[in-house]
Amino acid sequence: MPYPHLSPIAATLYETVPFVGPEAIARRDGIALRARIGANESPFGPAPSVLEAMSKAALESWHYGDPENHDLRAAIAHHLGMPFANVMPGEGVDAILGMAVRLFAAPGSTVVTSLGGYPTFNYHIAGYGALMHAVPYIGDREDIDALSEAARETGASMVYLANPDNPMGSWWDAASVERFVASVPETTMIVLDEAYGEFAPPGTLPPLHLTRPNLLRMRTFSKAYGLAGARVGYVLGEARNISAFNRIRNHFGISNVAQAAGIAALADQAHLAASLAQVREALADTAAIARRHGLTPLPSATNFVALDCGGDGAYAQAILDGLAQHGIFVRKPVVAGLNRCIRVSAGTATDRALLDEALGKVLADLRQERL
Amino acid sequence: MPYPHLSPIAATLYETVPFVGPEAIARRDGIALRARIGANESPFGPAPSVLEAMSKAALESWHYGDPENHDLRAAIAHHLGMPFANVMPGEGVDAILGMAVRLFAAPGSTVVTSLGGYPTFNYHIAGYGALMHAVPYIGDREDIDALSEAARETGASMVYLANPDNPMGSWWDAASVERFVASVPETTMIVLDEAYGEFAPPGTLPPLHLTRPNLLRMRTFSKAYGLAGARVGYVLGEARNISAFNRIRNHFGISNVAQAAGIAALADQAHLAASLAQVREALADTAAIARRHGLTPLPSATNFVALDCGGDGAYAQAILDGLAQHGIFVRKPVVAGLNRCIRVSAGTATDRALLDEALGKVLADLRQERL
Repeated sequence: MPYPHLSPIAATLYETVPFVGPEAIARRDGIALRARIGANESPFGPAPSVLEAMSKAALESWHYGDPENHDLRAAIAHHLGMPFANVMPGEGVDAILGMAVRLFAAPGSTVVTSLGGYPTFNYHIAGYGALMHAVPYIGDREDIDALSEAARETGASMVYLANPDNPMGSWWDAASVERFVASVPETTMIVLDEAYGEFAPPGTLPPLHLTRPNLLRMRTFSKAYGLAGARVGYVLGEARNISAFNRIRNHFGISNVAQAAGIAALADQAHLAASLAQVREALADTAAIARRHGLTPLPSATNFVALDCGGDGAYAQAILDGLAQHGIFVRKPVVAGLNRCIRVSAGTATDRALLDEALGKVLADLRQERL
Repeated sequence: MPYPHLSPIAATLYETVPFVGPEAIARRDGIALRARIGANESPFGPAPSVLEAMSKAALESWHYGDPENHDLRAAIAHHLGMPFANVMPGEGVDAILGMAVRLFAAPGSTVVTSLGGYPTFNYHIAGYGALMHAVPYIGDREDIDALSEAARETGASMVYLANPDNPMGSWWDAASVERFVASVPETTMIVLDEAYGEFAPPGTLPPLHLTRPNLLRMRTFSKAYGLAGARVGYVLGEARNISAFNRIRNHFGISNVAQAAGIAALADQAHLAASLAQVREALADTAAIARRHGLTPLPSATNFVALDCGGDGAYAQAILDGLAQHGIFVRKPVVAGLNRCIRVSAGTATDRALLDEALGKVLADLRQERL
């Protein structure tokens, strides 16, 4: 008996998991995970007050969460000093990016992003039948002038910029981002992904009053607030674009626990400040470890650091594979040029000690092989 | 400055919240919610063991959940005695329904459902540009013969059947469902929504070995397992269709807390049995209350009961509005014929006492108005 047809777009797609999780690697290789420093998560965690709010909210899990996410939405708006109408929470930036593509990229339209940029955005471009136009990085940064030019030349429906950037950790200052935003054609929706914004030096994020009919800004509780596993983020934009999400969003998508976690996280800015300090310390230490082993840390405005391994992609991959054999989970860029690096997230002191030890062994083994 | 165009499909959609939540009603009317018996949630809640698992999992919220949902998927498969390949968890049946429509309904194709059936499925039909063909209920049940015939006549890409049904609480026996499944054209993907399956009398759900290339079965932890606010459900089907969800799913969509909740819920079947007994008692009591007030409870295979108010839709609406004034949240069908009823979920003894009291007052007021 035949199978029903997939929709024309679905038929073009691959079955995939964009990121192989460390759990899957552990299951596959039978090597216990010892340091989880590959997904830019925050081992400094959510605040104790957030955990308490989550446990309390779990008691409310018997009923649906508020489909309007009213209290969370109000808390975000209040925290940012923005009107309620300019904020829309969602079940993580991954889901929000998917909704943005579904809203603004027509099948067959062109969406511009960076070659080697966030893979889940690319997954959504393909997933909604749009065509990806990818612009190479320039000097380990997303090339804002080339992105804007490509948007103009291709008549793009959307253009994506992560600032600070993942996977390189690089960034543009606010003035450059504002120049970029102003230069993009008004028919192109700009997605400015600021998932790593809290980690960036002052002067990196454009002011919140930067608003345009073709600008959406994405932020998350997954990174600095230590809530990657809770699934909650938000998008900022002009009211008309924000309310457009009500055409397609999964109204009950944010769990009670996640709504409560987001509200509690915003209320504990002292914990955020402490986490940011721990991240800075962790990155400085990771950079020092890398240097001692002859690797070159790149500047970072995020909670991870790209380490230039000083060779080609195959050499960096060999280091990554070697670390995995020691239960050290890191990731790496895949695109030529960028792939000379491995990407290491800010870890705990224990994570860093394990990295230091394993890196020594792996590099020694690789030197041995070369002899 | 103009706004970027919405995609052609998005441009056709309304901004909506398919269900107005009781929180929104309370915010709008300023009346505190006293009995939450309108969304078919389970006030008998998740098991204490589940709450414990959720609090423990909250501690892991600093990292992403397993994007393969491996342990949850394995637990569901084991619980049902089915192969892993035939099970796919998702962030609630609402999200899974959306993914199914996105996979199998091409824009412009026809999707058959019941007039007055689950609104969120209709939201997805429109959301992905498909055309809804709605078949009237027959005798307060979804009309399986007419659904099948409509699928054949329209060359439908999909057909939806909820068994047991929402909002009427009616059901077909397994043999009838199997006959329906066999009668649907093989080019039409059948979505058999069994969200209320655990509440149904024996002989309602077709056996799990009922499998066909054009059949997807949806189940949830939201109802009998008391986890509506956690966002976790699953779809069963042939391996090829199940793995097709990997083309489009939100890989990190199920939170750590929800994954853990689902696993723990399956492990505590004693709690499920106790909850089902409480639901039966609650429905029997609700039916008795309704009868005392002159309303007619319809038979139910779910955790709610449709109460025939003995008048037209306006009369049932007046009762619903009156109950809302007393802080009693119920819902009602909207389609002519079905709309003579209000739909009351199985509540606690307190909920039922409040309903009893409020119903007396509301009906007395309505009688007064008629004089």
